[in-house]
Amino acid sequence: MHKIRSINTLDRIAILGVGLLGGSIGLALQAHGFTGTRVGIGRRQSSLKKALEYDAVDEVTCDVAAGVAGAQLVILCTPIGRFEGLLRELASALSAGACVTDVGSTKGEVVRLAERLLPRRVGFVGSHPMAGSEKTGVEYARADLFDEALCLVTPTRRTPSASVRFMLGFWQRIGARTMVVSPARHDMLLARVSHLPHAVAAALVRLAMAQGAIDVAGPGFADTTRIAGGDPAMWTDIFRSNRRSVLKAVDLLVGELRRFRSLLDKDDPKAIDRWLARSQHARQAWIGRRYNKKG
Amino acid sequence: MHKIRSINTLDRIAILGVGLLGGSIGLALQAHGFTGTRVGIGRRQSSLKKALEYDAVDEVTCDVAAGVAGAQLVILCTPIGRFEGLLRELASALSAGACVTDVGSTKGEVVRLAERLLPRRVGFVGSHPMAGSEKTGVEYARADLFDEALCLVTPTRRTPSASVRFMLGFWQRIGARTMVVSPARHDMLLARVSHLPHAVAAALVRLAMAQGAIDVAGPGFADTTRIAGGDPAMWTDIFRSNRRSVLKAVDLLVGELRRFRSLLDKDDPKAIDRWLARSQHARQAWIGRRYNKKG
Repeated sequence: MHKIRSINTLDRIAILGVGLLGGSIGLALQAHGFTGTRVGIGRRQSSLKKALEYDAVDEVTCDVAAGVAGAQLVILCTPIGRFEGLLRELASALSAGACVTDVGSTKGEVVRLAERLLPRRVGFVGSHPMAGSEKTGVEYARADLFDEALCLVTPTRRTPSASVRFMLGFWQRIGARTMVVSPARHDMLLARVSHLPHAVAAALVRLAMAQGAIDVAGPGFADTTRIAGGDPAMWTDIFRSNRRSVLKAVDLLVGELRRFRSLLDKDDPKAIDRWLARSQHARQAWIGRRYNKKG
Repeated sequence: MHKIRSINTLDRIAILGVGLLGGSIGLALQAHGFTGTRVGIGRRQSSLKKALEYDAVDEVTCDVAAGVAGAQLVILCTPIGRFEGLLRELASALSAGACVTDVGSTKGEVVRLAERLLPRRVGFVGSHPMAGSEKTGVEYARADLFDEALCLVTPTRRTPSASVRFMLGFWQRIGARTMVVSPARHDMLLARVSHLPHAVAAALVRLAMAQGAIDVAGPGFADTTRIAGGDPAMWTDIFRSNRRSVLKAVDLLVGELRRFRSLLDKDDPKAIDRWLARSQHARQAWIGRRYNKKG
């Protein structure tokens, strides 16, 4: 079991939920030379039909058990709110030795669920490919979505190391950079750089809705709030699934805004400048490291 | 006096500070058929030389009085921290009937200063063309920077209506849409859609700097914090110049984040979804109105 080392040796990969992420995995597999069968599993015939039309998968089915039968790799790409039900269905349907992963934006709760519900004969490893956009649907799927994207892989002490190696190889094969972190650390980090910014973007839009302020907003505001265009149901799931870390991050931000407020209240130009400059430099350095460019 | 109705009748326009905005005004004037002389005024010979090389102006000088002599329109494009000194210099140097405007990001303090320091024989009207980026310098100037950008024009009861009409015509001529608002309303609106978002972007970067979180940040974080790349000195000026409205906006945001925090703390999925959906819809509607597109 867990002897699979490379996607070259696979002949069947099941993708549960063929939307932007699931569809892009299908397209990326094809683009990177996967020659086995990509099975798309979904609830609605219309979505599955579209996934076939976009060539994101080779076969489709609404029957989870039939879809995952014989698959050596199963990838959960549905909203995380549906994971519990799906994991229960998968438990009895998975082939022995299959590797299971997900692409959910939170990991602590998801990994706990998977380890509780899946049998030991399958290897579960949580993944979080940080790609995508506020768009949803297979029509936005792209074969190059994962190119240079970072994929966090979140094993626990229970995870077989062969499964970890396999999943790292999988994501690298379809173009991603990978990093291994614990589920708890993943959730703390993501609360700061993704979940909190989403809540903040939504809060900024709410403030701008009053007094007609939004009608004088420009391109800077459009960028700052772009992520607030994301699907509310999906984000409600994410926030609830990472509740503690998000609450903590909100408190940290309120503290940081209070610091700024107090510098401005004291009208201390040097301190305001330093406070801003530190962010500017840190962001610039990050952009340099991350994208090998300026700005 | 104030008989000038159209930039066609002008033969000399003085631009104080030929950076991104000043340079773009120069290029846009040329692109839109202005045939008079564009005078660039600055403190450093090197910047002025660059402005000439980029064809952003026709003549340059470090001498403010000589530069504005005979100009029918004078545009302040320096950081707002330098306005007071410049307005004092301009007071005695301006030709009778000249129109003066600025492109500063705050208006209450700027307009008060200008009305106190400039003689009645010139017509001052504050302007805020909402264009530009976190980039600075004439090398980023573009003739089309104002195309479809919104320019807020902020007269007071003291402003001659001919000057207002002239400035509206000027901005429209170089491609901008215009809107008239009072300086106080301008500052309240901008605190919400520009100044507060800037402080928030900087605060989010500061939070992400801790724990190495920034190293797992992705494109969403890059967008949300793009404006934090702006020049700290310029933004310190802006915050100080719009201090009261910014303090108020920070308090409003903290209140809004507390509301979100309480919904999440109660783990109320319907209320979280509603809170997010309202922002999503408002932003979508705004993007539709503003850019005639989706997303």
